Amino acid sequence: MSDSLPEVLKLLDKSHHAALGRLFEFLRIPSVSTDPAYMEPCRKAAEWCVQELKDIGFASARTVETSGHPIVVAHDRNSVPNGMTKVLFYGHYDVQPPEPLDLWKAPPFEPRIATDPKNGEMIVARGAADNKGQMMTFLTAVRAWKLAAGELPVAVSVLIEGEEESGSPSLAGFLAGHGKEVKRDLALVCDTGQWNKDTPSITTQLRGICSIEIALTAANRDLHSGMGAAAANPIRALVSILGGMHDQNNRVTVPGFYDGILEPSNETLDRWRALGLDEKAFLGAVGLSVPAGEAGYSLLEQMWARPSLEFNGIKGGYQGVGEKTIIPSKASVKITSRLVPGQDPLRILESIRAFVESRLPADCKAKFIGERGSEAILFDPNQHYIRKAAAALEDEWGREAPCIALGGSIPIVTAFRDALGMESLLVGFALSDDRIHSPNEKYNLTSFRKGARSWARILARLA
Amino acid sequence: MSDSLPEVLKLLDKSHHAALGRLFEFLRIPSVSTDPAYMEPCRKAAEWCVQELKDIGFASARTVETSGHPIVVAHDRNSVPNGMTKVLFYGHYDVQPPEPLDLWKAPPFEPRIATDPKNGEMIVARGAADNKGQMMTFLTAVRAWKLAAGELPVAVSVLIEGEEESGSPSLAGFLAGHGKEVKRDLALVCDTGQWNKDTPSITTQLRGICSIEIALTAANRDLHSGMGAAAANPIRALVSILGGMHDQNNRVTVPGFYDGILEPSNETLDRWRALGLDEKAFLGAVGLSVPAGEAGYSLLEQMWARPSLEFNGIKGGYQGVGEKTIIPSKASVKITSRLVPGQDPLRILESIRAFVESRLPADCKAKFIGERGSEAILFDPNQHYIRKAAAALEDEWGREAPCIALGGSIPIVTAFRDALGMESLLVGFALSDDRIHSPNEKYNLTSFRKGARSWARILARLA
Repeated sequence: MSDSLPEVLKLLDKSHHAALGRLFEFLRIPSVSTDPAYMEPCRKAAEWCVQELKDIGFASARTVETSGHPIVVAHDRNSVPNGMTKVLFYGHYDVQPPEPLDLWKAPPFEPRIATDPKNGEMIVARGAADNKGQMMTFLTAVRAWKLAAGELPVAVSVLIEGEEESGSPSLAGFLAGHGKEVKRDLALVCDTGQWNKDTPSITTQLRGICSIEIALTAANRDLHSGMGAAAANPIRALVSILGGMHDQNNRVTVPGFYDGILEPSNETLDRWRALGLDEKAFLGAVGLSVPAGEAGYSLLEQMWARPSLEFNGIKGGYQGVGEKTIIPSKASVKITSRLVPGQDPLRILESIRAFVESRLPADCKAKFIGERGSEAILFDPNQHYIRKAAAALEDEWGREAPCIALGGSIPIVTAFRDALGMESLLVGFALSDDRIHSPNEKYNLTSFRKGARSWARILARLA
Repeated sequence: MSDSLPEVLKLLDKSHHAALGRLFEFLRIPSVSTDPAYMEPCRKAAEWCVQELKDIGFASARTVETSGHPIVVAHDRNSVPNGMTKVLFYGHYDVQPPEPLDLWKAPPFEPRIATDPKNGEMIVARGAADNKGQMMTFLTAVRAWKLAAGELPVAVSVLIEGEEESGSPSLAGFLAGHGKEVKRDLALVCDTGQWNKDTPSITTQLRGICSIEIALTAANRDLHSGMGAAAANPIRALVSILGGMHDQNNRVTVPGFYDGILEPSNETLDRWRALGLDEKAFLGAVGLSVPAGEAGYSLLEQMWARPSLEFNGIKGGYQGVGEKTIIPSKASVKITSRLVPGQDPLRILESIRAFVESRLPADCKAKFIGERGSEAILFDPNQHYIRKAAAALEDEWGREAPCIALGGSIPIVTAFRDALGMESLLVGFALSDDRIHSPNEKYNLTSFRKGARSWARILARLA
């Protein structure tokens, strides 16, 4: 079976444009999961995935209904031969909202090829990297294996959800009901980045996340600011509370926030140092110059080993052009915390609520919305499947694939471990300048092409 | 001439519905001055005023172009007999933005009559009180005088601007060019409130105002919050800066903010105490319970004699439904300060800028937008024209008209005094529950009817 690898790789090179055409079709579906206005496109994206999988040869591909967006499930064969490695590939068909739209150079759901001197040719669209482009590296590799070898070197199941960008609210219920169907030896996840353009990598540490929206109200309507000073102003209350959540050293002041944190080992810190990150260049690429986190920690430590408490959005009062002399009746903020190993998301949320409640001035009421959380995760870099994947990546890229961490979160990985006892292999080909979650998201053509080739090799190594 | 007053009042009572019809016509024009999208309706409102004045008998009524919205000017006669009192009536045809629209029970620019047990019949529309309804009390009185007596008891000029709700940027230029034309013995302004439903009043003290918008930027685009902690977040910077602008006693901490303040005299404070404000009822009407200003000051002192620093609007990052795990690149706040006698608006703005600049973290830049200011104002309650107006109001309402202050600002009054050396008489009929600047703005029918009758009497007394 593994003998077929050269043919598979050859076929991948020959069918590159067809693969790109399929990805463009997928990118044209505006499957924004967080906004109810995009309900229909999300369903359309799920159905597109089912069709794609059937076309590849996953005859059983189907959608499973949830109380939110449907989940796609497929298996490449009905019965798995004894001793054959079984993997579950996980991806998500939903994307982040494209806003602010005015910063896109072209419509976010009309994918196009752009070029720049640093990256060469790039696919530009919302979801180009996160996660449609990345997901399609795997499906493209699988298609080539089926065509070139007739069957896959390992048993492959596929789980594609449509709520990753809005906290995966339906996944726990799905895993409770379909856990037996999707539990395999190993989950494969292609939703992370590589260390740099030339260096592939395996992600073995992820931050967790918890999120909460806080809405304050005071008067029963917006007031004329002639009442200014005398009437409670919820923006004043909000900025006073939020302004006290970090100290001068950028340390979070919410009591208990840092409780229980497991510090990275010296070996891990040495490994990170050896990566030789150019902090200036990394921050300079987004117009910044110095790490904004806790004093005394390097940039990589701040992103990978320290938790954050970030304000993702704030609003209150008059939002239009010009001025409006009101004391508003409402103000709200959206907060997410990225968590590190040892932190308990639910306790963090409780601490944030208590912090807010204890600081509410008279006549201000707080409502807490959309609370959810997921723990950080750590894998041992010496596990056999990680070593096999590293070897496959080295074959394709011609250099060692280091184990790195991720400042972001992939809650599904926690759920696979906690609910199904299944480990995950995190291999991704996104780059730090891919602008995921931002306007003009892109995915380099080389990421797409070499990503598919990498998966073809990993499947062979896992056999 | 003054002998005609009984006939004028009788005519006002008989022509009430026609007056209401004219006001409704005026209210249907959505003349929002602060938003460029309403440019045409503002012009239409100006032209409506010219037509109304011509119809009353102000043959010379005309618009004067400015770099913003036009100003309406009119005089009731070409030459004024020696010794006749000359007054300039000031009003504004522009209104506040109607947002938030979803809180209006009916469309804001489709005026209607509503009823409640406390207020009886009320006109409901944006501008019903501020300032279209109030302005029309005066024009209705003038129309009745012309019809019943053939001419007015004093020489009346009229100045109606269209930028009061956006800071009157064109007025200084207009007064510089047309000062001689509009300088009269006294300005009459109907843009204030009465003490309560049964008690008319004259406003002899106004707070000033200064305003500024602060826009912070950090990264050159929204970032994935996986960079959380390590990347500068302008919302974090903004709430930290704004959260430090008030201390625990609700005192503004911006250095120099309280410099030079003239405290009200004991006599004034005694007069305010004698008004017997029911703080609980006043705040209860808008869903609040305790004064939110500086500790140690009564509610009336906080609104009338102490300055405010209020956040009228704040925004940054993701504003949509659900969550978006970004570190935003921008955040901004709109601030207005209500000022009391002795405070210098330009120095206050300078202090706010310096406060912000000195607290900006690395990689955050601040831009300051739309700065403007106007000083507070104080009139001596013993001036003859104030005593005459008080007597006229007592005739109409059957009880004494106290001199009160206003927490709001009427920059034109400052301009009349400083640029033209002209005093103002501030008599208005709005009530504290008129919801001016808020959804469902209303004006009681009794305010409109008795307001017009009051002006008819004041004109007679000033003769």
